[in-house]
Amino acid sequence: MSKYVFYAPNPTSTGFLTEEESFHACRVLRLRSGDKIRILDGVGGLYEAVIDTIDSKKTNFVKLQILEKQEKPAFQIHLFVAPTKQMERMEWMVEKCCEFGIHSIGFFTSKNSERKEMKLLRLEKIAIAALKQSKNLFLPQIKPLTPLKQLIDSMEPSTTNQLLFAHISDPPVGNLGKQIKLNNSYTIFVGPEGDFSSDETSLLFDKKYTPFSLGKAILRTETACIASTHAIHLLHE
Amino acid sequence: MSKYVFYAPNPTSTGFLTEEESFHACRVLRLRSGDKIRILDGVGGLYEAVIDTIDSKKTNFVKLQILEKQEKPAFQIHLFVAPTKQMERMEWMVEKCCEFGIHSIGFFTSKNSERKEMKLLRLEKIAIAALKQSKNLFLPQIKPLTPLKQLIDSMEPSTTNQLLFAHISDPPVGNLGKQIKLNNSYTIFVGPEGDFSSDETSLLFDKKYTPFSLGKAILRTETACIASTHAIHLLHE
Repeated sequence: MSKYVFYAPNPTSTGFLTEEESFHACRVLRLRSGDKIRILDGVGGLYEAVIDTIDSKKTNFVKLQILEKQEKPAFQIHLFVAPTKQMERMEWMVEKCCEFGIHSIGFFTSKNSERKEMKLLRLEKIAIAALKQSKNLFLPQIKPLTPLKQLIDSMEPSTTNQLLFAHISDPPVGNLGKQIKLNNSYTIFVGPEGDFSSDETSLLFDKKYTPFSLGKAILRTETACIASTHAIHLLHE
Repeated sequence: MSKYVFYAPNPTSTGFLTEEESFHACRVLRLRSGDKIRILDGVGGLYEAVIDTIDSKKTNFVKLQILEKQEKPAFQIHLFVAPTKQMERMEWMVEKCCEFGIHSIGFFTSKNSERKEMKLLRLEKIAIAALKQSKNLFLPQIKPLTPLKQLIDSMEPSTTNQLLFAHISDPPVGNLGKQIKLNNSYTIFVGPEGDFSSDETSLLFDKKYTPFSLGKAILRTETACIASTHAIHLLHE
């Protein structure tokens, strides 16, 4: 099986790699016509193909064969986080959550938010690199910065989607293992370094969001995201 | 309770903050004589004290009172990892493992190691910052780069210390939850990006180290360290 893995959306209909992936295949890996590659479509499919023509702008592949197809993940994680001041912390969070496996990552502004704008393109590239590295099958959607209230108001808890938020309190609320129902979809909110404001916390409770604890230690925002994502994976092992 | 937390080894005998902590107290936080502070001794103790004299080189404190003292953690994690080429990845790993709580982090050279030397001072500073941020009580010891074989040969499994290593195999071995006995001490080895060599893996098996899996996704070295540390904490919740 080829060790060269690429991301290509809709490989069955396009038949080629994007310019970025072509550049990597041609200039970095120095692949040639006839070389075998593997392709992730980001929506559950892993394929094998053979390079037909290749240059640094476009790579056409032929003999596309499916190796694995997962129609729907057993559970889904949709994370929303108030971005940290240092963009680097969000980049690390996206990389690590994608390595574990996650289905979307969105950002919100709130009272104690430290960052009011975000460039998503770099995060999307990090997510693609982590997908290829981890061999996960689902590429997360990276969603733009949106006011917290707008997000909260737009969602309804349902039997197939649990709405949750990381909550620091004394005594602590239950941890994720106690608060979630397995094999479900989880929409998780993680607040900024200064936490949700008391109005925001009240709104989350009013709208029936379930609070959860991440243990005794005070975690940084990006660590809380990584811990929540990893905990849900462990609970499904 | 004061929101200003400092790290001071042996506060009962010294009565002062280090130069680095004094600089932070004096120049960044602009604390004054009479201000209350909290002190972590890194070996299970949390104290409150009052600043007596303060300048950017030395801060003396008085009225030291113990707030919390944990004699011995319920479990201990001792991690050994082959450092990554990018030092930044090791810095993140140290920060995240310290936030979750860890008791020592050591480094080893092995066949597929990408880095043959390491400066530990910066990692020690990161560990102290994460200790203060997380309010954990134990500062991990940061141990120097040592050849893998030397480390393996120096250790014996015992009923109070389990020796483990992250192992990728098909079919996978059991995950940490299956392989560990709770409330113990865990010495965990995580290999380099190219994994342990087959000779190294054989040696680990010969010496009765227990293999464990971290799930289906292929994790980067630093992610495997974070995942192992976090998983052990979750198992003890």
